[in-house]
Amino acid sequence: MCPPQLHGQIAVKALGIGKHVLCDRPAGLCQSSVLKMVNAAQYYPSLISVMSHGLRFLPAFMQARRLVEQHYIGELNVCETRIHCGPLIDNQFDWMCDEHMGGGVLGILGSHVVDILYYLTGQKAMLLNGMVKTYNKQSRRISGIRSITSDDFCTFQMELDRGASATVTLNNHIPGQFFQEILICGTRGRLTLRGSDLYGQKLSQNKEELLYRDIDDLARSTSSLEVTGTHLPKPYLRGLFKLITALKGAFAAIEDKHSWVKEPVAMAATFEDGLYTQAVLDAVKESSKKKEWVKVQVITEPPNPHPHLSPPGRRTGTMSYVY
Amino acid sequence: MCPPQLHGQIAVKALGIGKHVLCDRPAGLCQSSVLKMVNAAQYYPSLISVMSHGLRFLPAFMQARRLVEQHYIGELNVCETRIHCGPLIDNQFDWMCDEHMGGGVLGILGSHVVDILYYLTGQKAMLLNGMVKTYNKQSRRISGIRSITSDDFCTFQMELDRGASATVTLNNHIPGQFFQEILICGTRGRLTLRGSDLYGQKLSQNKEELLYRDIDDLARSTSSLEVTGTHLPKPYLRGLFKLITALKGAFAAIEDKHSWVKEPVAMAATFEDGLYTQAVLDAVKESSKKKEWVKVQVITEPPNPHPHLSPPGRRTGTMSYVY
Repeated sequence: MCPPQLHGQIAVKALGIGKHVLCDRPAGLCQSSVLKMVNAAQYYPSLISVMSHGLRFLPAFMQARRLVEQHYIGELNVCETRIHCGPLIDNQFDWMCDEHMGGGVLGILGSHVVDILYYLTGQKAMLLNGMVKTYNKQSRRISGIRSITSDDFCTFQMELDRGASATVTLNNHIPGQFFQEILICGTRGRLTLRGSDLYGQKLSQNKEELLYRDIDDLARSTSSLEVTGTHLPKPYLRGLFKLITALKGAFAAIEDKHSWVKEPVAMAATFEDGLYTQAVLDAVKESSKKKEWVKVQVITEPPNPHPHLSPPGRRTGTMSYVY
Repeated sequence: MCPPQLHGQIAVKALGIGKHVLCDRPAGLCQSSVLKMVNAAQYYPSLISVMSHGLRFLPAFMQARRLVEQHYIGELNVCETRIHCGPLIDNQFDWMCDEHMGGGVLGILGSHVVDILYYLTGQKAMLLNGMVKTYNKQSRRISGIRSITSDDFCTFQMELDRGASATVTLNNHIPGQFFQEILICGTRGRLTLRGSDLYGQKLSQNKEELLYRDIDDLARSTSSLEVTGTHLPKPYLRGLFKLITALKGAFAAIEDKHSWVKEPVAMAATFEDGLYTQAVLDAVKESSKKKEWVKVQVITEPPNPHPHLSPPGRRTGTMSYVY
């Protein structure tokens, strides 16, 4: 598997030679690299360019988004997300052990969480606090002079742009199970996404009711797609298959092999969404280092590579003053 | 019920007239008020002075503490706590609606969580980040010019003194249920306290096992103690009854009615523990306001009531300089 560090370069090159691009999460990259992807995608609008955030294509998540839009929960107040799973590290030393190459629970699972929270609520993070930790620096197979730098525990809190709050906890210290729960509470009720099932409870109800139970069609999907060696948990994999099926649909509707229709992939995460996700992940890491809340800032221009050199205009001004 | 704001004064007075004191959580107070309680308790060592943190007396929590001490989980890495429940506000406007009088989920439930995490892990918080929110500012019964200022959602993160991390989420937006889970993960395994049951899983095991199931004896206890109108959830109430039974035992062992033995209440939270809890709660609120991590500082002396007036020594120094 290609390290996420290289995804940006490959995506831009691929668009440049006329390929449609389905890009895995851009973890481990800084925003400027994702901005190049965004610019390339805008430059080639006739090519498909989507992120591989598959949860958006799972029926429970689609229904939850619809219900939020239909004010099932009223005004959104609080989001709570937690993921429990075992270590994501393989037996060998590879990019997943290295935070700079895109390893770590924040990048691998957190990126999907940030995207799906935006998809579900329609609200973006404004202010953010993060705590990112690496406790298992060595494992039975990875020892000696090599040490793991990718994070295995992460929690971050967000203040969203219309006043709601969100807290996310990603914990890699629970081997033997994968558990994901996304809770969205509002003024009229709440929605709970447990794995890929949806539960809901209005304030007037005494207990929660099942709104959507997902039927496991992963076995069938895997046999047809022959995916092996993936580190993605089941709901993410299933979402990815649904996304790929949607992509197939985008081409199948048109007889011309080089053309496609947008509708089946309209709800996929665009590269702009990927840029927002990257801005949030960068802010989590920055906040964790600075020990304070930071603003989420999505860049629109590549950062100045030499920030300490004065821009030409100002330099000329200084020169004239000196003379 | 007496507002927690007054607990400090009453406790100090009661000790002064020779009464044993079982004091409810000191929420809504600042540390200086709890420090007076600590000093009074030290001044009257022959009187019992304990906090009403009852979870310490539930068998599951006692067993969990023993297992942590016996290195069941190895070195502690991560603690995760979450409490889900409905609004804590009664139908009338009282101290529970006012943050300054001790209302709010952070004070009412968070104080117990801070205490029990210290009891279980033996580690104290060094650095802390908090997010405290009030979303439901009015209710069906509390409206008009009166508004609720006590918090209904709170999350805080702690860095403990031996390197572990903890995250706590207290959510009052889930009516119709009370759910509490405390998860303690270490290098060798984990312990989970769900309600008042204990589960455990070593790294070598595939799934968690039940280590202690609590038998519900609350009905019997309540009938004998006739407690009414409490806002405490079931595990907390049960803990409180166990604590009161232990207190009874402290007197029953001795024939002299004015004397008592320490052993049955030795593991109760002392006023010093209450001071630490208050320091953490203060830090959560301070961090939430400042939007940055703050150090947990337990005071040992009452703060200067006039911090802007220079101390006499310095004033003299300045005077001599002027002359």
